[in-house]
Formats: sequence, C-alpha cells, structure tokens
Amino acid sequence: MTHRIVVIGADAAGMSAAHQALRAARRVGREISVLAFEATSHTSYSACGLPYWVAGHVDSPEDLVARTVEEHRAAGIELRMGTRVTAVDLEARTVTAEGPAGVEEFGYDDVVIATGAAPVVPDWARGEDSAPIVGSGAVTTLDEGREWVERLKTRGDVLVAGGGYIGLEMVEAALARGHRCTLLTRGRFMHSLDPEMGRRVVDAMRRAGVDVREDAEVIGLDVEAGRVAGARTADGQRVPADLVVLALGLSPRTEMVADQLPLGQHRGLLPDARGRADADRSVWAAGDCCEVRHRLLGEPRFLPLGTHANKLGRALGDNLGDPASQLTFDGALGTSITRFVGGEEYLEIAMTGLTEEVAVEAGLDVLASTLEGTTASGYMPEAEPIAIRVVAERGTRRLLGVQIVGGHGAGKRVDAAAAVLWSGGTVDDLAWMDLAYAPPFATSWEVLSVAARRVAERL
Amino acid sequence: MTHRIVVIGADAAGMSAAHQALRAARRVGREISVLAFEATSHTSYSACGLPYWVAGHVDSPEDLVARTVEEHRAAGIELRMGTRVTAVDLEARTVTAEGPAGVEEFGYDDVVIATGAAPVVPDWARGEDSAPIVGSGAVTTLDEGREWVERLKTRGDVLVAGGGYIGLEMVEAALARGHRCTLLTRGRFMHSLDPEMGRRVVDAMRRAGVDVREDAEVIGLDVEAGRVAGARTADGQRVPADLVVLALGLSPRTEMVADQLPLGQHRGLLPDARGRADADRSVWAAGDCCEVRHRLLGEPRFLPLGTHANKLGRALGDNLGDPASQLTFDGALGTSITRFVGGEEYLEIAMTGLTEEVAVEAGLDVLASTLEGTTASGYMPEAEPIAIRVVAERGTRRLLGVQIVGGHGAGKRVDAAAAVLWSGGTVDDLAWMDLAYAPPFATSWEVLSVAARRVAERL
Repeated sequence: MTHRIVVIGADAAGMSAAHQALRAARRVGREISVLAFEATSHTSYSACGLPYWVAGHVDSPEDLVARTVEEHRAAGIELRMGTRVTAVDLEARTVTAEGPAGVEEFGYDDVVIATGAAPVVPDWARGEDSAPIVGSGAVTTLDEGREWVERLKTRGDVLVAGGGYIGLEMVEAALARGHRCTLLTRGRFMHSLDPEMGRRVVDAMRRAGVDVREDAEVIGLDVEAGRVAGARTADGQRVPADLVVLALGLSPRTEMVADQLPLGQHRGLLPDARGRADADRSVWAAGDCCEVRHRLLGEPRFLPLGTHANKLGRALGDNLGDPASQLTFDGALGTSITRFVGGEEYLEIAMTGLTEEVAVEAGLDVLASTLEGTTASGYMPEAEPIAIRVVAERGTRRLLGVQIVGGHGAGKRVDAAAAVLWSGGTVDDLAWMDLAYAPPFATSWEVLSVAARRVAERL
Repeated sequence: MTHRIVVIGADAAGMSAAHQALRAARRVGREISVLAFEATSHTSYSACGLPYWVAGHVDSPEDLVARTVEEHRAAGIELRMGTRVTAVDLEARTVTAEGPAGVEEFGYDDVVIATGAAPVVPDWARGEDSAPIVGSGAVTTLDEGREWVERLKTRGDVLVAGGGYIGLEMVEAALARGHRCTLLTRGRFMHSLDPEMGRRVVDAMRRAGVDVREDAEVIGLDVEAGRVAGARTADGQRVPADLVVLALGLSPRTEMVADQLPLGQHRGLLPDARGRADADRSVWAAGDCCEVRHRLLGEPRFLPLGTHANKLGRALGDNLGDPASQLTFDGALGTSITRFVGGEEYLEIAMTGLTEEVAVEAGLDVLASTLEGTTASGYMPEAEPIAIRVVAERGTRRLLGVQIVGGHGAGKRVDAAAAVLWSGGTVDDLAWMDLAYAPPFATSWEVLSVAARRVAERL
C-alpha cells in the first residue's frame, strides 16, 4: 500500500521535504504519496526578498517565488492551496483541513509540520477588529509585501519598530522610496552583534539621516481618523509617523500541536537531525516553526532562516522517503548577513557563531577583539574599510565567533570563519590558513586572518 | 654577546622575518641584531600590485611600498640598500656583500635567505647585451613596472607571452590603457584551472577583443631598428607587436647556495615549518626562493606568493628570535585569485586545492563537477553568473579542490572552501555547513554549497 505523507505548509521547509521525499522514495523504489496543505495563495517564496521588493529593487512578486504551485504539482505533489489545517490528531494520525472544498479529514502515515512563523503583532498594534491598525503592518508575507509597496507610494514619514535585520532592511526600503525614517528599538539596535559592532551600523544609519532611537520600546500607537499617526514609547516619547513597520520578530506557529509535542524555549518544535519531532508517532518538522540545534551552544535556538528550512527540509525528506538515508542536518552556527544602503552609506553586516555577549552568558571564558582594515589592498580603488571582531575561547584557543561590518566584499568573508567554526577549529587556523589574495580583493595577509592573529597573540 | 642575524633580501619574507625576530627576542629578553641586505633600491613592495599600477588604477609606486627603508630602520633593523650579497659561506658563517661601501664580509650566527624569485627571460628575449630587447620586458620589480607605465603611454599593439595570472593581469592593464592586445601561451591558457574553467576566462577575453592564442609557444622575437617588432611561435606563426610582455613565470633565486643546500624540483629551497633550511648550520629561508609544503599533496610546490612569504617569514622570525617559539607555517593549499576586466567583461577567477587534472596526476580517485548559478538571489540586481567546479575524492568523500569563475563577489567565496580543505573536511561539510544568506549576497542555499552537494550526491 502506498505510504501516505501529509505536509502542513508549502514554503521552503515543507516543499524541500516533499520533493526530496519523492526523490528518495524513487531512489529506493518505494511507493509514497505526498499531500500538502497551504493556507495562503502562495508557495515557496522568498520572505527575505520582501524588503528588496518594497525598496523597488525587485520588479515583481512573481520573481520572489522559487517554485510555483504548478511546478510542485508537476513533481507529483498533491497540493491544496488556500487550505488551512485546523487540527492534527497525532494519535489518530489525521489532519482536519478547511479550504475551498470545505472541511475535510485526512489520514496519514507520516506528517510533516512546516507551518513557519508568524510576525509578532502586539495588542497595541491591533485595532478593534484585531487586524493591524491602518497604516501599520508587518512584512512577512507576499500580501504584506504588496501592502508596503502600495503604502510607500504615498508621501509620509515611516517609523520602524524593531531593531533586527528586517527593521534595518525596511529602513533601507523606506529611504530608497524617498521617505524620512525613524527607527525605534526596545534595547540596543542590532543586538545580535556586540555593542561596538552594532554601533557602527547605527552611526552609518544616522549619517544617512535616519533617526535611530535605542532603548525606546514602542508600547502604543496613536490613531487619528482611523489611521496610525505615531507611536508612544515606554520612556514617554511620542513620535509622529504616517506609516509604522512592525518588525518585532517572529514566533513559531505551533499552537496546533502545542499540547501534543514538546516545545523549546521559544515555543518552537524540536526535531532531531533527521527532522523527527516524534519518531514513535511519525511526526516530522522543519523550518521556522522549529528551533534548530546551535552547534556551538549544543542546544536549540530559534533561528528562523530559509537556509535552515531548506537544509533540514531536505534531510527530513530524504529520511522520510528512504528509511535507510544517512542524510542529517547537523546544526546551525547562527551565520547571517545583511546590508544597509542609504544616502552615501553602504555597509555589509555579517556574523557567525557567538558574540562575546552570548559566549559570556553561556559561561565561556573568552577573549574578543576588533580589528579595522580594508577589503582590498590599501592602494587599490576597491579598498573600503572593514571592521572584524573575533571571539575565541581561552585555554582551548577555539574560535567562537566572528562579526563583520564593512564595505563591498566585507560580508561574505564571514563564510570562511563559519567553515572554521563548523570544523571546531581554532583562532590559529583562521589566522594562518591559506586564503585568497590579490590586490583588488584582499590585503596580502587577509584582514580576516589578521583579526584572528591579533586575538591568537593575546590568548 | 649579541646574537647576529643576517637577512639576504628585504622584501616580504625577509622583512617579516626580521621584524618578528626582533619582537620575539624582545618578548623573551634576548639580545639580537639584524643586518639586512637589499640589492635593489626598494623594500617590501607589492609585486602583485604592479599590473594595477601599470593599468592606471594605482597613482604612484610609493603606494605599493608596504614599509619604507626608514620604517624598517626605525624598528631596529640595520638595512643596507643597493647592496648585493654575492656569496654565502655556510661553513664559515659569512656573507660577502657588494654595495656603495665596496665589498665587505660579514659574520653571522644565523642567516635568512630571502632572495625571492627572478622572472624567466629566455635567451630569445635578450639582446646582445643580454638585457631584454627594447620594447619587451617582464613585470616583477618597481623598476620594470615603471618601464611598463612609460611604454604604455606610447601607441602600439601589445603582445603578452605567457598564460598565467601575470599575463592575464597585464592584458587587463594594456586594455585599460587603450591598446590592442594579443596573448600567446605555450599550452592551455590558465592551466592552473581545469580546461572547462579556463575556457570561460578565454571566452571572456575574446569577447573583450583580446586575440588569445593557445598552443602558441613563443620561440623568438622579431627585431626592427633595435626594437621588438613581433614574436614567432613554435608552430610557425608570426605575430606583429610593438610591445612584448614577458610573463613566462618565475624561478627561485638560489644560485648562490645551490651547491650548499638541497633544492626542490623547481630549484627552490626547502625550509621546514619553522623556516629552517639547514638547522645544523643555522640557515633559514622563506619567500619566493623557496618551495612550500602543499598540505594536500604533502610535498613541496613552487607557489611564489606574498601570502606564503609573509606567513613563513613571520613564523621563521618568531623561531629565530625565540628558540622556544611554537609558531609554524603549516603549508599552503594553492589558494589564488585574480580577475579579468576588459570592455564590458568582468570576471573573478579563484581556486584552492587541487584541480581534477592535478589530483588525477597525483594518483587520486576523484569526481569533479561544475555547477552554474548566481552570486546573489536571481531576482536581485546584484545577481551575476558564477561557475563553480568542485573536486572530491571517492571513498573518503574528502574535498580536494574548488575553482570559481564568475561576476562580482564570486572569487572570495573560495575562502570558505579553503577553510574546509585546511581542516581536511569532506564535500558534505562544504555542502551542508551554515554559510551566510541574504538576497543581495547569495541564493538561499549558497551556490558554493550547491556545487558541493551535487558532487556529494554522485560520490
């Protein structure tokens, strides 16, 4: 009998799993069927691309769609669009789905939970109908993206609430569309970086004319004539604004199974390296509804990123389609990259591993140091400033993390550091290994290695 | 009594060694003196930067000088400029030097040989005075660079003999200065890459109007009125040209000690990881006069690059200044990068580790495959084509090498692969590790990792 797989959610994780399950099953001559449910009208789109669409760098929302509904179906996936799974019974192995065809119940042999994450929208940002107040909204779906494209066609000042990557990218988008922009953040801006590195980003934003206010938690919105008119902060500031971006983070969509499965600190599901959230009951999970194992901390962290969704989804699918599969997702390093573009300012921002702050919190004995250098040989026109912060463990000399803020070509340098972290290497490895040099691309002793060497010499 | 160190050659390797020896000796309270001899009138300049100076991207030759004579002296190095060491007696521990002060002999306790490499200038390229024929020359020193800056001010067609990095970079320089350009190479152009990758570079050069002729070994120059007028090839071609760049490679300057020390296959010195070329006789060596250990091949290779000169020089200096030093230079991976710019064409070219060709020659059982992708998410204006070739070993799944040819941001991706090679990692590590993703910088599954994954799936 055909083995029936149900996938809940048809974005990166769910569809990676579905396609790979079909490939793996074909490989071993196993018969499986995949039935996938998607609550929205879109599949497999790049949420990370939304701010660039809003900024005007991407022409059309179709460009953001990696694989269309038709492509999924052509691969043999039965895909129900606009159909929300409202309940899963892990004991009975059934899902209840509500869509154009009404309410139906489906049995399964294996279920994949790939419900993603929802933007945090506090009560103060909601109107009486519980929808976000007119003129405000998050930017996590194609529909929300389209709203922002429209909103930024009108004149008006933009206020961004939230000091993470999406907040930064929406500031870039607002500036690109010619709006004045204020950013309010509860604590420190870019708190995923150590303070002195985050400071460099704040300075660049201010030079580009952005009013950045830290320690300014938004606790309410002012409403006039049914539209947002400004924000109030915990420390009593009132900031007028015509549009308010809610970039307050994400939370895993796990309500439906919260009483049936263990959840992590951020209420994410906790699949193993093969994607099994509950092996006895044939429950699998991947993507932003999960926490992923941080290789350095050895514990789950909520790192909602398409990269992990794709990888765990693929490993999961392989194991689902072929029970003898050896493919595993061996954890994340917290590697990330973004940029800030505004006025004359251009900054690439990247990190991998642990910041000094996080390492100290984790009880590690660390040494951290920041080096300033250039992205190319100093005499070349390509040379731009770059600051690199290296964090290492005393005693073991283990590399713990690298943060980078700099000009063109700065950010992706973080990948070499990520590779060292992946192998459990030392700061000496990063300092002495053979990295690429030519004058347009690097200094003759690569700046990333010099930064590591400086720490190595002081350990 | 003060420990006397003599350094022969005041460029990257020699001066890295000298400075680090002084630092290390100070660290341990040891008294040393450093006497350095430099045959030319320049120290510590970037030979790699010469083509960019010739191209007009660098304003002044002074910009290429990393540290001046005065800076070296201020650090406590006794530096004799314009002084050529004509003999070293490793038994008597003396050097004979000839310079402004006449001929003198100096005793030493330790000697550092850092004489660098000389450009290959065949007899056919020399006139009766044995100097290169007027209108032709290499480009390895500041003086030769200056000659090329002057030569390219005149009109005329440029012919580049040699199919390596310097040849490529001098083509870029000639095009930037508005010259028509022909490149002749004995075998395959860019033979440090596998054929299909080198082909991509040749195609770009041809689109930029360069007349690239492979399998066209230059065996003679035509001379008219005392100036070069063209070149003749082994297969009977006559190629007219007003200027001829000799980019035929380098050979280690080891004649002076060739009968006293063992040499490698390329006639380079063979220092160990601490820079000792002969521990019993206190002989040290670093830089382009040496072969360096290739970590993957486990044997010495001639890889004349400033990066290795700096690193081995520094490790050597530390051991020289502090006999208890633990600093070592643990080999090279053959990592390299360059670019081609001409007309509308822009290509970054990089590699690390072994090509399929070299790996097969070394007797390894390999699988290699090339993937085409983009440097950024396909919907972003930053996205440019990139081709990545991954070579891995069957059985062990060990990553052996990566070659990259692509647009802006392509080349330095090689560093992440170099880091995997450095740790002895597998192609699976490269495929699955946590590399940085955001739409302006990468696809959500980094193209380098996808290239590795494709190989991993077929191993």
